[in-house]
Formats: sequence, structure tokens, C-alpha cells
Amino acid sequence: MERPRHQGMTKNTYMRWRLPLVCLLWEVAMIVLFGVFVRFGPEADAHWEEEKREMNLTSDIENDFYFRYPSFQDVHVMIFVGFGFLMTFLKRYGFGAVGFNFLLAAFGIQWALLMQGWFHSFKSGKILVGVENLINADFCVGSVCIAFGAILGKTSPIQLLVMTLFQVTLFAVNEYILLNLLHVKDAGGSMTIHTFGAYFGLTVTRILYRPNLEQSKDKQGSVYHSDLFAMIGTLYLWMYWPSFNSAISEHGDAQHRAAINTYCSLAACVLTTMAFSSMLQKKGKLDMVHIQNATLAGGVAVGTSAEMMLTPYGSLIVGFICGIVSTVGYVYLTPFLESRLHIQDTCGIHNLHAMPGLIGGIVGAITAAAATEDVYGKEGFIKAFDFTGTYQTRTPSVQGGFQAAGIVVSLLMAFAGGALVGVILKLPVWGDAAAENCFEDDVYWEVPEDEESDVYHMHNPDKPASP
Amino acid sequence: MERPRHQGMTKNTYMRWRLPLVCLLWEVAMIVLFGVFVRFGPEADAHWEEEKREMNLTSDIENDFYFRYPSFQDVHVMIFVGFGFLMTFLKRYGFGAVGFNFLLAAFGIQWALLMQGWFHSFKSGKILVGVENLINADFCVGSVCIAFGAILGKTSPIQLLVMTLFQVTLFAVNEYILLNLLHVKDAGGSMTIHTFGAYFGLTVTRILYRPNLEQSKDKQGSVYHSDLFAMIGTLYLWMYWPSFNSAISEHGDAQHRAAINTYCSLAACVLTTMAFSSMLQKKGKLDMVHIQNATLAGGVAVGTSAEMMLTPYGSLIVGFICGIVSTVGYVYLTPFLESRLHIQDTCGIHNLHAMPGLIGGIVGAITAAAATEDVYGKEGFIKAFDFTGTYQTRTPSVQGGFQAAGIVVSLLMAFAGGALVGVILKLPVWGDAAAENCFEDDVYWEVPEDEESDVYHMHNPDKPASP
Amino acid sequence: MERPRHQGMTKNTYMRWRLPLVCLLWEVAMIVLFGVFVRFGPEADAHWEEEKREMNLTSDIENDFYFRYPSFQDVHVMIFVGFGFLMTFLKRYGFGAVGFNFLLAAFGIQWALLMQGWFHSFKSGKILVGVENLINADFCVGSVCIAFGAILGKTSPIQLLVMTLFQVTLFAVNEYILLNLLHVKDAGGSMTIHTFGAYFGLTVTRILYRPNLEQSKDKQGSVYHSDLFAMIGTLYLWMYWPSFNSAISEHGDAQHRAAINTYCSLAACVLTTMAFSSMLQKKGKLDMVHIQNATLAGGVAVGTSAEMMLTPYGSLIVGFICGIVSTVGYVYLTPFLESRLHIQDTCGIHNLHAMPGLIGGIVGAITAAAATEDVYGKEGFIKAFDFTGTYQTRTPSVQGGFQAAGIVVSLLMAFAGGALVGVILKLPVWGDAAAENCFEDDVYWEVPEDEESDVYHMHNPDKPASP
Repeated sequence: MERPRHQGMTKNTYMRWRLPLVCLLWEVAMIVLFGVFVRFGPEADAHWEEEKREMNLTSDIENDFYFRYPSFQDVHVMIFVGFGFLMTFLKRYGFGAVGFNFLLAAFGIQWALLMQGWFHSFKSGKILVGVENLINADFCVGSVCIAFGAILGKTSPIQLLVMTLFQVTLFAVNEYILLNLLHVKDAGGSMTIHTFGAYFGLTVTRILYRPNLEQSKDKQGSVYHSDLFAMIGTLYLWMYWPSFNSAISEHGDAQHRAAINTYCSLAACVLTTMAFSSMLQKKGKLDMVHIQNATLAGGVAVGTSAEMMLTPYGSLIVGFICGIVSTVGYVYLTPFLESRLHIQDTCGIHNLHAMPGLIGGIVGAITAAAATEDVYGKEGFIKAFDFTGTYQTRTPSVQGGFQAAGIVVSLLMAFAGGALVGVILKLPVWGDAAAENCFEDDVYWEVPEDEESDVYHMHNPDKPASP
Repeated sequence: MERPRHQGMTKNTYMRWRLPLVCLLWEVAMIVLFGVFVRFGPEADAHWEEEKREMNLTSDIENDFYFRYPSFQDVHVMIFVGFGFLMTFLKRYGFGAVGFNFLLAAFGIQWALLMQGWFHSFKSGKILVGVENLINADFCVGSVCIAFGAILGKTSPIQLLVMTLFQVTLFAVNEYILLNLLHVKDAGGSMTIHTFGAYFGLTVTRILYRPNLEQSKDKQGSVYHSDLFAMIGTLYLWMYWPSFNSAISEHGDAQHRAAINTYCSLAACVLTTMAFSSMLQKKGKLDMVHIQNATLAGGVAVGTSAEMMLTPYGSLIVGFICGIVSTVGYVYLTPFLESRLHIQDTCGIHNLHAMPGLIGGIVGAITAAAATEDVYGKEGFIKAFDFTGTYQTRTPSVQGGFQAAGIVVSLLMAFAGGALVGVILKLPVWGDAAAENCFEDDVYWEVPEDEESDVYHMHNPDKPASP
Repeated sequence: MERPRHQGMTKNTYMRWRLPLVCLLWEVAMIVLFGVFVRFGPEADAHWEEEKREMNLTSDIENDFYFRYPSFQDVHVMIFVGFGFLMTFLKRYGFGAVGFNFLLAAFGIQWALLMQGWFHSFKSGKILVGVENLINADFCVGSVCIAFGAILGKTSPIQLLVMTLFQVTLFAVNEYILLNLLHVKDAGGSMTIHTFGAYFGLTVTRILYRPNLEQSKDKQGSVYHSDLFAMIGTLYLWMYWPSFNSAISEHGDAQHRAAINTYCSLAACVLTTMAFSSMLQKKGKLDMVHIQNATLAGGVAVGTSAEMMLTPYGSLIVGFICGIVSTVGYVYLTPFLESRLHIQDTCGIHNLHAMPGLIGGIVGAITAAAATEDVYGKEGFIKAFDFTGTYQTRTPSVQGGFQAAGIVVSLLMAFAGGALVGVILKLPVWGDAAAENCFEDDVYWEVPEDEESDVYHMHNPDKPASP
């Protein structure tokens, strides 16, 4: 960063024209592009009655809406309340956590509907949308929320909107390569969402490295009630993860199975997280950071394999391992990454999404490679891996190889994309705060002058009075 | 108000006999009326097996329960957590916000089941209830929760119960006029719920005008954590609004379409709200009041048209406009209404429900008037507007006219009903607090003497110690 | 308790090796047992296509997943957010409330899948699981969460894990006796979950009686914001209770009916709770403890009868009564139980679960005994009570008798089981805190040193500074 360290906050973080300009410009672009491209899919269009006859459906309940809408709503809660509140743990960045997450996700889902639509739902010049598109848009934005976790408190809302634009674009490209070109399975997104999102965000935060970040060290912690707010986020992510991993699986057994596997993996993960959280602290006390985050690693790590015949005990094993890996990561790896590699990872997404995402990709490759007609049944085998058409002759071991290739592609896309975006975000025009003002809502938000903050000031006599 | 300003709090707000009396009396009345009138509808009755044969249904999944129950639960969350927590933003009125909302909604849904039942589900002397009745009861109470927003902090729980009794009654009458007499479409309630509820509440608060309200000005703001609690309400309203607008639409494409349109409108609304929140503040900072409220206006404004072929880009346009209108309203209109028209609107429901509700009614009228068989398909056209029986020959433009008439009727009902109820609530028997005790939980609730309040008292040395 | 009262906190509550050991050991046991026993049921297995043909199902929507998954997710939220946050009302035990509830529930659902699986889903040496098993596992753990409410703040996490192991085991045995041997109906668990869970917990807390608990009296209260956190729990329990009581009912009318009955009962319960809360306090103010708890008693009390033809007005009556009973319990019975019977019931589960659970069992017995073919229809009558096979000739009055026997069995199991577990938990090896450190997160959790706690310490000068 070339700008002087003690530059006045008011000067460089002034959002009054920049933020409205970006928001309005992009929203106008969305309206134009939606106007040109987006139409209702056959199951949401008023011609449904005719469609129903053509598809030989006897009942309205066969509309995809009824198969997927409850899961969609659960995923929606995960994106907005789950991620939003998970990041409220910081004592003075709750508005930014919830509010900026809200902003970037609301923009991201629109752009994702377009990008993913062009790749997957494009027919005769139009993108035809239905409930599955809404879920996929939420998924795509999930990867941006993950990346946001790494740079939480250190970026301006404009930077977040710029990042969202690029990341959603690259997400859609990466997803297309994996699902369509490599014919890889990844219903819960261990690779496309978590591995990609996390390494993307880590690359961005590496490039945006702030050497003086210890100046805002006092604001990087939590307070008692902010930790409870964060637990709201944690629990909604944890409870609804079975819906996340099953939301876009095939109708019937695949959705059912994905929910059960995820339920099991997450349950096991809680126990090993608690175990290692206590074990790795010399007083043996539990650390809320671990409980808030590492308990979720089990959901990430069955993201690829949940819809496969991973079986409940296989899921328990994956959850068992990930609770340990993730907690150990928080204790040992995060400080190491910060001090040695200059990766300042505010929420520890490396432990919650990056490593478990990689594990998830690998578990998926192994589970696919190990599939047999005996376990899946003749029809189930073909249906589970969509071994039809061009892929009629693909064998499980070949599928496993392609799954592994999907991990590598996701990683490369994340590093390249993150580097590109990091460099763009480093331009001194986006209005990010100085190091001593990081993790402080006061920079971009009207903050009520309340009792609490009186106390805060009282106990921090050297903090200048707010303007 | 004739009573002296400094009258002791204990005297005029004493609830001990009045509140229990009202609660018990009304609940006994409910039991009697339910006993006389309410029975299970055919899909909830144990005779369902016979019913299934008669209706030629082959599976239990055809029970309306499975079409609507997930949406019902989302709506239920919006009423109790959404509205309840949205109103916790005040620093010392969180108990009242959540608790009184809980009380009035729990009473209101019972009375609504009866009122709406008599109008819409009355067969051979009995009201036959099913899941759709539950949704409609929640909808009806939603309009009371909206009105509550205008008078938040200034009324006693008894006043709220009285208002609920009258407002639910008038809601049901207005709804009957619109849906049955005018044959108007309003699945998400832009007119019946929002326009009616908001102008009703605004009229009530106008009549209850308190000239000395600035005496409790210090309690009308938020504190840091109360703003985060309010965001829980905001996000649940925002996330579940697609369920709200689609909950009672026709099975199949209409529900599907309503959810998609609402999703789009809400997404656009977030961006323009953020843009204008920053633009209208001279330091360019975002204001939580706008984020908590104006982001929801997009959901209100597609309440009538969401189930029509509004199309995703049409929804974006509506959301775009409403984010702006609502935010501008908070900045300029609310202070104007208070100072010039003596309308003290605690939560700014004029900006969140009244104006967007009107816009929603108008958008609905236009969308209906613009409908063609080409866009809807022959069958879809008839189904979407229920152009059968008496209405077989109604044209889209006539329908548009009736839709517009629905707005006018809702407004008139709201003003007349609000005036009546306002006058009743002005009677000096309901135990509302003096102006200097408004927005203060201590009046009606046992409030814990906690550290925080110690600090509060410490910093407010002239506040008398609590008894 | 034999250990000296002022023993250092660090010594007897040191968890570093004990907690990890128990967590890891038990999770390894789960993996081994799941590996040996647990497999996917036919509707979650990849052989589903073949299954579908065999069962003559024409559509994937007939998969039980679509009948029950939305209810499952609601129940899941009740267990983790509902119970977890309901117990955050204590000013300094929020981490323990949410965190330990999370830990014990995550372990409990695994063990419940096994225990209940052996009794109910065991086929050719394997437990075949589907979404109904997940719901039942959550139900079972619900009874542990209830018992946790009685001992909240007074036990170590190891004690909770030990209790969970035993209580889940006994729950499954009791459930088997009731549902299979006595052929009793109890879909919402008035007997199996609430009566059993509550009296189990009360017996445990009686045996763990702490004569010096008044030493931590200052921490047994709430603060303003902790009461709001608790309301999140309350509202989610209240809103989703219709899902709870209908989650495992028969497809079709029974699920539909159970939801309606529960909705009605809960609505009535809110009004009588508010009435008596105000009436029983001499200043007539409402008490958050009552609102947080007694409003839920109506859901508990229709747990057995909700799926029967209780009818909406019958439900109102039950809710009416239970709001009164529960509130009166909080005001008069809890202090009595503590002072006379030495039952220290932190959350007042006697008022929320024990008494309403008993009422629920009785209401169920009466409703069953009063059943007629006229009311249910010939088919509906047989289906509702499963009067097939061995039970073909059972009459309603006999069924009522067996229902009543179910209450007695549940009580006996609860007393015997609670006594056994209480004695085990009294062993001085589990690391529970001294009386003066009860209700204090600091014992087992890393607590952030925040402003609030600075204030707290400031106001408690004799508390030693944290290390």
C-alpha cells in the first residue's frame, strides 16, 4: 500500500458517491441483462398446464418446486443468516459482517443467475430459470461469502462488490469445466464452492497483506454477546447443511441419502472438535472459535460424496477426521500462515473451508472410484454417476481420476482468479480503511453512541472520541 | 390526552387486573366460538381416506398439507421472529417488541381463523380448516404486526389486543370485498395486508398523537446489539418473503413463479437501498435503519403481481424502484410526517409497507391489465386470473380496473377503521404510559437489574433509581 | 459431596484430558457400531429404482423424504437452536447453554440412531435408516435437552455426556415398551419425551442437590440481552412445535391434523400465560421467565393427542389450561420444590415439561378412549389407532387404559433411571464446579475479556481477577 499510514479516515473511506455509483450501475446492468436473457423455465411459466401434459405428469406435486423449495429455503438461510451471523463474532464489526454479506450476496445471486444460466440453462437465446437455478445461485454466492471470511474487516464494500463480480464469473467457469467438461459429481460443492472459494479468498488476502494490522489487534477479538450472535450463524449452518448437500441431487434416493450422510458427518465432527479444542489449550477450556467453526467442517468434507453410497459410518469417519484437522488448523496453522506466509485470514477459512474442501474432494474421488454395481444396483449405478450418452463407458476408477482432476482445476482457478482480483483490489481507489481502523464498523456505518460504547471508550482512553 | 403529564407510572399503567381480564375473557370467547364453529377440513379430518377416493387422488402426497406446509412455516417465522425481532432495534423496548408482538399475533390468529373462516370456509354451519386457513390467519395478523410498528413503544398491551380485535375484523371484511366481490388477485397481500395494515396503523398513531414524545427521545434510538437483534428479524423477513408471496398461490407454476419473482425483486432492492442510504448521508455512511427496513420493500411491492407473469426483469425493476422510494422516505418523509402531520411512526411503516404496498397494488393492476393469452397460454390465462363462471368474460383491462379499485377500497377501509380504532384507544382506560415512559420496557415488564443497566444508570445520573 | 467447598477451581474442573478422552472414545465406538450395524434404508439406498417398482410407486415424490424432510428440519432447529438458545437466559452461562446442548445433542443423535434402530428398524442384522430415523433420534435427544434444563449450570460436560448415554438408552427402552408392547400412540411425545425427560432430569438434580448453591445466586439471573437471546429459542420452539407433533404421524390427514391442533393449543397458551404472569405479580408486570417457557406448555400437552380428532376447540382448551398451570408452577411450585424437596430446577422444567407432559398423557388417554367410528370414519378409526393384526379387537376404552399405563411406565422409568444416573454423576471424578462457580462459563470456556465483563468485575470487587 502506497498511501501514508496515518491518513485521515474520513478522506480515504468516503463512500458517498463511489458506493452508490457502483450499486446503481451494476443493478441497472442486471436489469438490462435480465430483460434480454432471463425468462421463466417451463415449470414456473404459465404454460405449465401444457407442459404437464407433454411431460406426462399427472399432478402439480410433480413440479420441481415441491422437490426442492424446502431445501432452497434452508440454503437461503445458510447464506444470509448462516454466513452473515457467523462473522459477527468480532466485537465491533457486526454491522459490516451481516450488512456487507447481505449486500454482496444480494448482488451475487443476480449475477450468478446470469453466468450459470448461460452455461447451464440457455435455450433458444434465453435463460430459463426455476427453483434449481435459485439454489445454484445461492451456492455460487456461498463461495464468495467464504472468501469474504478471509478479508473480513479489512476491505470496503466496493472492494467486496468488485470481488463478487469476478468471483461469481470465475466460479461459473470453473463449475462448467468440472460438471460439464470433466463430468465430475459435486452436489454439495466440496470442490466448486469450498475449495475454490477458500483458496480464492486466501490468495486475495495474501495480496492485500497489511503489515500493520496489529494496530487494530484490540478489535480482532470477540465480546461475550458477539460470540452468542456468531453461534446463531454456526447453528443454522450446521442444522441446514444436510439440505445444502442434498439440494440439487437427483430426486428420490439421492437427496435422501445426501441428507443422512451429512447429518452423520456433522454429528461426529462436533465431538472431535470439542475434544481437540479442550486438549490443545493448556487449561483445558473450550474455545468458542473452534465450536463456531470447526464443528462445520464435517459438512464441507462430505460435499462431494454425500449423495454417493458413502454410508453413515463412512460419514462418521470423515466428520471425525475433519473436526480434528480443522481445530488443529485454528490452533497451529492460522498463526503460522499469518506470521510466515503473510496470509491474514480473519475467520480462519483455511481451517473451515480450504482443508475440509480438499478432503471432501479426495473423499469424493475415492468414493466414486470404489463404486460398484453391486452396491448401487445396475440402474442406481448409472443414475448416480450419470453414466449415459458420451459417458456410457466410463468406469468408476476413471471417474475417480476425473474427480481428482476437478480438485486440481479448482485450485488453479482459485489461485489465478484470486491473484487477479487481489491485484485489482490493491488499486488505491476503492476506499478501504487504514490498518488502525480495520475491524471497526464506525468507518462505513452510522454506529449508535450507546452505553456499551461509552464503556468501551472509558476503558480505551487513548482512542480518539468519535466525530 | 387529558391526564397530567407527570402522573405516576405505577398508577396509570397498572396492568394487574385489566390485562388478565382481557386475555382470559377473549380466550374463553375463542373457545366457545371454536366449539360452535370450527371443525377439521376434509384433508385434515380422519375421513380423509374416503375423501381421497371421492377426489380421485391416488396418493397421500396430494394432500394440500404437502403443497403448503413448508411455506406456512416460513410465514409463521416471519410473523413471530421476523416482525418480532425487527422491532427490537430500540435500546430499551426489546421485551415489548418481541413479547407484545407474540401476544397480539397469538390472539389474532385465532380470531382470524374465525373471521376469515366465516367468509371463506363456511360449509353447513361449520368453518372447515386446513393448512391454507393457518396461512391466511398468519397473513391477517401480519397486517396487525405492521400497524403495531407505527405505535411501537407508545401503547399498552391492552390497547394492542383491542386494536387486534378490530383490525382483524376489518381485514377480513376488506379481504372479502376484494377477493370475492371485486374478484381481485392479491396472493402476497400488497393491498389487503400492506396497504391496509400500514394506513390503518398510521391513522391510529395520528389520532394517538403525543405532543410531548420528545421527552423519551433518548430511548427512541438503538444500541449496537439491539441493531443486530433487529437484523435477525430483517433477514428472516427477507429470506422467507418468497414463501410469503407464494404461500397461497395456485398449486404448480403459480407458486413456483411467485417465489422467483419475489427473490429477484428483493435482491435488487438491497442494492438500491445501500446506494441511497450512503448517498443521502453527508458522511456517506450506511444507516442500519435503512438496511433493516428498506431492503424489504421489494417483497411488499410484488405482493400482488408475484404470481403473475411479471417476469424476473420486471421484478428487478420493481425492487430497484422500491429500495429508492423506501430509503428516501426514511430520510425525508418520516421527519416531515412527524413534524407537519403529527404522524409519529416509530418503525417507519410508511416507508416499508404503505408506499411499497401502494406501488404493489399499482404494479399488480398494470400486470393484470397487460396480460395476454399469448404470454399465459390459453389455459394458463384462465387459471391465473380465475376467469371462470361469472368472470368468464372479464378482460385483462377490466381486471386491471378492478385491481385499482381494490387499492382504493383498502385505503378507505384503512382510514375509516384506523380512525374508529384510534378514537377507541384514546379512551383513558387502557393503561398506556406517559410520554416520558414511552419506549421503556420497565413499564410493563420485570426488567433484570443487570450490569448493562447499571452502566446505563451511571451515565444517566438524573434517571431515578428503579424501585 | 465429599470434596471441600473452597477447593480451587482449576483443580477439580480441569477438563484437558478427561473431556477429550470421553469424546474420542465414544465417537470411535459410534464409528465401529455404525460400521457393523447401520445401512441406508430402502428409500435412501441407490437400489431405490428397484424398490419403487416393487412398492408400485410411480413417482420419486412418493419417497418418504418428501413427506417428512421439512418437518425434520424444523425439529432439528428446535433441538439445537430452540433448546440451546432458550437456556441462554442466564447472564454468564450462554456459552455453556448453547455449546453443551450442541455437544450432548450431537452425541445423543448418534447413539439414538443405534438404540432406536435396534428396537424399530432392525432387519437381517442391519439397522436401515431413513429420514424418520433422523426425526426419532432428534426426538430422543429432545428428552435429554429437557433434563439438561434442570441441571443447567451445575454440571460438567462429561457429566452431560454420561447422562446422555444412559438417558438415550433408557428412552429407547421406555419407547419400545410404550409403542410396541403397550401399543400406545404418542406421536409428539407427551409421555416418551416430556414426561420421561422431565422427571428423569428432576430426579437427577434432586440427587445432585447442592446445599450451598445460593453462593452463585448472583449469576442465576438474566441480563437484558440474555433474555432476548432466550426469546429466539422460545419462538423457534413455539413456531415449529406443529412440525414436532406432526413429524412422525401417518402420511396425509394425521400429519395435517396434528399441525392444526398444535397451532391452536399454542395460541391459546400464550394468552393465559400472559394473563397469569401479570396477575401473579403484585405490580402486574409481565415476567420474561413465564413468556419464555409457559407459552410452550400448550405444545407439550397435545403431544399425544394432536394427531387424534382432538379438534381445534379441544386444543384451545388444553392450551388454555396449560398456560395457567405452567405459569402458576413458576411462581409457586418451583420455589417450593427447591426449599422443601431440594429439587433445584434451573430452567423450571417441572413447569414446562413435567406437568404439561402428564396432562398431555392424560388428554391423550381420554381422547383415545372417546374415539368412535362415527367421528373417525371406519377406515380412519382403524388407521388412527392402528387397530390391525393383534390389536384388531382393541376398543377405544381399552386403548385409553393402555395410554394411561404408558404414563405410569414413563414415570417409573424416569424415576428409576434418573436415580441410577444421579448416583453415577455424584461420583467425584467428573469435574463439576464448586457451588460458587456454578452458572459461570469461565469454568469450562475461554471467555473473552470484554468491556462488559470489565464492568461485571468492577461491580463484583471480591471476584478474583481472571488469570
